[in-house]
Amino acid sequence: MQKLQDSLKPIVALCKRRGFIYPGSEIYGGFANTYSYGPYGAELKKNIKDLWWRLFVHERRDMVGLDGPILLHPKTWQASGHVEGFVDALIDCKACKSRFRADHLIEEALHKSADGMNLKQMTEEIQKHKLKCPKCGAQDFTEARVFNLMFHTHMSKTGADGDIAYLRPETAQAIFVDFKNIIDTMRVKIPFGVAQIGKAFRNEITPGNFVFRVIEFEQMEIEYFIREADWQKTFDHWLAAMHSWCKKIGLSKNHVHEKEHPKELLSHYSKRTVDLVYDFPFGTSELYGLAYRTDFDLSRHAECSGQSLFYTDPETKEKFIPHVIEPTFGVERTILALLCNAYDEEMLENGETRTVLHFAPCVAPVKVAVFPLMKKEPLSEKAQAVFALLQRLWHCEYDDSGAIGKRYRRQDELGTPYCITIDFETLENDTLTLRDRDSMKQERLAIGQLIETLSKKLV
Amino acid sequence: MQKLQDSLKPIVALCKRRGFIYPGSEIYGGFANTYSYGPYGAELKKNIKDLWWRLFVHERRDMVGLDGPILLHPKTWQASGHVEGFVDALIDCKACKSRFRADHLIEEALHKSADGMNLKQMTEEIQKHKLKCPKCGAQDFTEARVFNLMFHTHMSKTGADGDIAYLRPETAQAIFVDFKNIIDTMRVKIPFGVAQIGKAFRNEITPGNFVFRVIEFEQMEIEYFIREADWQKTFDHWLAAMHSWCKKIGLSKNHVHEKEHPKELLSHYSKRTVDLVYDFPFGTSELYGLAYRTDFDLSRHAECSGQSLFYTDPETKEKFIPHVIEPTFGVERTILALLCNAYDEEMLENGETRTVLHFAPCVAPVKVAVFPLMKKEPLSEKAQAVFALLQRLWHCEYDDSGAIGKRYRRQDELGTPYCITIDFETLENDTLTLRDRDSMKQERLAIGQLIETLSKKLV
Repeated sequence: MQKLQDSLKPIVALCKRRGFIYPGSEIYGGFANTYSYGPYGAELKKNIKDLWWRLFVHERRDMVGLDGPILLHPKTWQASGHVEGFVDALIDCKACKSRFRADHLIEEALHKSADGMNLKQMTEEIQKHKLKCPKCGAQDFTEARVFNLMFHTHMSKTGADGDIAYLRPETAQAIFVDFKNIIDTMRVKIPFGVAQIGKAFRNEITPGNFVFRVIEFEQMEIEYFIREADWQKTFDHWLAAMHSWCKKIGLSKNHVHEKEHPKELLSHYSKRTVDLVYDFPFGTSELYGLAYRTDFDLSRHAECSGQSLFYTDPETKEKFIPHVIEPTFGVERTILALLCNAYDEEMLENGETRTVLHFAPCVAPVKVAVFPLMKKEPLSEKAQAVFALLQRLWHCEYDDSGAIGKRYRRQDELGTPYCITIDFETLENDTLTLRDRDSMKQERLAIGQLIETLSKKLV
Repeated sequence: MQKLQDSLKPIVALCKRRGFIYPGSEIYGGFANTYSYGPYGAELKKNIKDLWWRLFVHERRDMVGLDGPILLHPKTWQASGHVEGFVDALIDCKACKSRFRADHLIEEALHKSADGMNLKQMTEEIQKHKLKCPKCGAQDFTEARVFNLMFHTHMSKTGADGDIAYLRPETAQAIFVDFKNIIDTMRVKIPFGVAQIGKAFRNEITPGNFVFRVIEFEQMEIEYFIREADWQKTFDHWLAAMHSWCKKIGLSKNHVHEKEHPKELLSHYSKRTVDLVYDFPFGTSELYGLAYRTDFDLSRHAECSGQSLFYTDPETKEKFIPHVIEPTFGVERTILALLCNAYDEEMLENGETRTVLHFAPCVAPVKVAVFPLMKKEPLSEKAQAVFALLQRLWHCEYDDSGAIGKRYRRQDELGTPYCITIDFETLENDTLTLRDRDSMKQERLAIGQLIETLSKKLV
């Protein structure tokens, strides 16, 4: 059922056409690869976030939630290493003013890696080979300079200098900064985790592939605090939990793979990182990440803040800085993978093609659509009564315009798992038809059985 | 039951002590009146947002949701009037570098209004009366200058100038900017509304009163599109809906009032605005707002973008720019009002005081707590089975440490409406005790009845 799309194009078009994802600020010509989640996209996103919170916070006794600010004290980002190290080397074309990543320019033009080159070496390499501006063809670049990927802004609270603030480039640090408050006020015992969902921002000049790489995005992130000795088994636990999550939301097992980061390319804070990658139409790319961050972050924050971030074991009274396993889930990448995974154009028996999103019911934006066979009484009244019954339990849609076949197609494109039709037989014996999106089969069902039947199907 | 607190202090203390709200970046000495929602605060916030979305999006057929970006095209804020008009006049003390609102300084020192004064007049007034710096007492200020309340940042995408971007100071404009996409792709008919929940940022120099006025906050906002002729009845409808919401979340009717904005003080876009104000401990202050924004925003965006933002009536083919009624709900103010409304210190019969949050069950962070009478088998096993049963339906807590009375007190402080105790009788006849937070009464109940009983109580 879930064959791999070779192109994002039809998915991007469907997203726009059916109110999933609009280009950001489109009436003003768009804005820097930002996107707006339309009515169905907003529901899909909310379903993903709600399910994640339920599974990883509510259904586990070893987890608590947190909702920290986007604007954190600037020292946070000195401690984390972002002020110094979260940078790209950029150069500008002097002719057309376009800006590029120097390493990308070298890699693409000369087919060699710029890894390990410093700014001067990159500048020289670009000048020596007279590389051309990919936009306008000119061969006149500025020197390569370092640009930090954090968006910065200024507080107007004081007239003093140094009132800079950063938009957080990851949600993780908000958890580390609150670690002390959490251990002081919550009755948590190691091992335990803190989960957070929220926005982060990265001032990237090469966003792309629809919502895959964007400057404004949401992360669902867990920092799981452990004793150092337990890191390997905890790592394995979370790797399995991440695979279970992929299964739960309906991602095809064949298209989700593990990718171990080679030791020499690990981030400064990590001793092991495994990505879950997905076979996107544009290539196999990072979906989620799992990193063993050691005690790097808490140690750095303890050092930079002067606060004790020791955890004291309530039984042994042993004091130590916990180590951390970090599973990270990108919300936008989840949405994109789900769309790619669910999208299909199926040839029907009658020769027509139907476009369908085979979403798992747990993430589908609309769970049930209710149709009166025709827009007339008493069919409408009956259909509205059924709609009212279901609407309090699930996000439902009511549609009474056009032929039933056309209404099914509309819901197929939204990924609605079930459609209910109220027909003349309903008026006689209180039964209705329940139509399955994937099999397109209908079954006749008593209204009295509807909620129980749907409750079982919509898990 | 809900008497008015005369001070925020015990509430702020409870919020910190019990993991509701921590000062932002506290290990670094705090940061500009930002806050972090701890485990219980995050649940409370999520409950408010989820309930709002269910009532105003899922349970209404005239509403759709949207989730737009924080970073919108800068022209958005020129069109809306924010670039030009969303400003404060600020002055700096030359001695201690503290920054103040010029109008506040005049109002507080001279007990007269600065309304209508321009920058020059305010500067002269401050110099003439030799006003003192409230921080250091010096009498040497800079001239008053205009500061925009929008946080601004820069995109690094291009090397060109003019790459400024603003953090949205309100969520509303993200809806107006997407109006065309919504009417083009969703089968909406006027009257209809678009709902959105999301963060907004205001670079205020006088935040305060705990989470009442903060630089980073969340709004739950609706733009409801209508024909001009319908504005009054729609305004009345939403005013009633906002009161119903206050009732639903449990705000005491006695402490919620309407405050009509006088015509001469209306914002440039509004023909009528009514605030719902709440009797906070620091005074009666704005909780929610309802504004008739006319067709100001859509007309301005049509003008500035060059795009047609006309709506065409599907029957009459009449083309017009819709008028807008806007109900706005602040998330943080909802949280603060709920805390103030729910907080109580009650004298018990035995002379002790219990601190309790009388939250409505629909917003309470934890719905049910499960206790084994003692931490020993087979009580624990039985209690864990009951916990597992409930955990999939509601956010529950398990607590087996300390005396039962102490465990009740802990849950009272969190506002947990029901506590369940598994005792020796449970082992004999599968009954348990259900304890009500407000009455503190216990009833004996069969385990088999538990879910049904709780389902009725937890609405």
